[in-house]
Amino acid sequence: MAGAPTRVLMGVNESTIKGYPHASISSRKAFEWTLDKIVRSNTSGFKLLFLHVQVPDEDGFDDMDSIYASPEDFKSLKSRDRTRGIHLLEFFVERCHAIGVACEAWIKKGDPKEVICHEVKRVQPDLLVVGCRGLGPFQRVFVGTVSEFCVKHAECPVITIKRSAEETPQDPVDD
Amino acid sequence: MAGAPTRVLMGVNESTIKGYPHASISSRKAFEWTLDKIVRSNTSGFKLLFLHVQVPDEDGFDDMDSIYASPEDFKSLKSRDRTRGIHLLEFFVERCHAIGVACEAWIKKGDPKEVICHEVKRVQPDLLVVGCRGLGPFQRVFVGTVSEFCVKHAECPVITIKRSAEETPQDPVDD
Repeated sequence: MAGAPTRVLMGVNESTIKGYPHASISSRKAFEWTLDKIVRSNTSGFKLLFLHVQVPDEDGFDDMDSIYASPEDFKSLKSRDRTRGIHLLEFFVERCHAIGVACEAWIKKGDPKEVICHEVKRVQPDLLVVGCRGLGPFQRVFVGTVSEFCVKHAECPVITIKRSAEETPQDPVDD
Repeated sequence: MAGAPTRVLMGVNESTIKGYPHASISSRKAFEWTLDKIVRSNTSGFKLLFLHVQVPDEDGFDDMDSIYASPEDFKSLKSRDRTRGIHLLEFFVERCHAIGVACEAWIKKGDPKEVICHEVKRVQPDLLVVGCRGLGPFQRVFVGTVSEFCVKHAECPVITIKRSAEETPQDPVDD
């Protein structure tokens, strides 16, 4: 039962808490859970693939204070997005290196649920791991669409990992 | 990273093909996938828990040829159900013993999705594995409710494993 390692694709995203450019609570939870419960001591048996999907900023809410007057302004904005994405992926890659699990990481732009399923088709992982916020029955109607969409449409087994109650921030939409 | 093994609860069911009292295609697929991609060579790192939920036979369709005339008839029917359930679980338990993975198996009666989520609450596994038939967009409306319900409501991470196209029988509701 040696053979090629089990390739686990993980969709990871930034925290939605403003000014906190780090991995979301649900991404970190899904990652730590995967190491702890699936990889365990069998570090050579798995390869983790981290996909970060950046959503094009349509309404520009994050950038209300900025004025874009020249093409260079947009270039610097793009490069800032890129820097944030790389910073996010660094967190996961460094942790993998520290414990000796092989990994790869990359950034794509688009609608997360569509991009994740597209990347599953392209990369053909053995398993897709998606965190979700695991909110109450009311919030569940409005969020969790990425994980639900992937469970239905991704062409590989999918594991969904909810945040537990004690990991939920005061405002449940913060992540 | 040793510690207690990762406890994986698997909902398993019989094939719906009449006169074929064996594990369903999706149960076997989910089981073999779990061994191959998650457990791998780390057989001491995992414990598999097999739950078979028997649905009370309301319409009696399977038993149209039978006449129940005495309490003993029902007893023998119940004992036949029990025998079938045990036969099903034997398949999984024997396979686990052969490769040296610890396991437990039990039978419950009721609505599978409700019973599975209730057993998750009671047994507190690290992971729930549910197979699903992975049908086309049309059939998806009518089936797959067990796995969808569990993804939403089970109080632990859930992995859903669809059948691949080549494992789907001619009539996709056969499983």
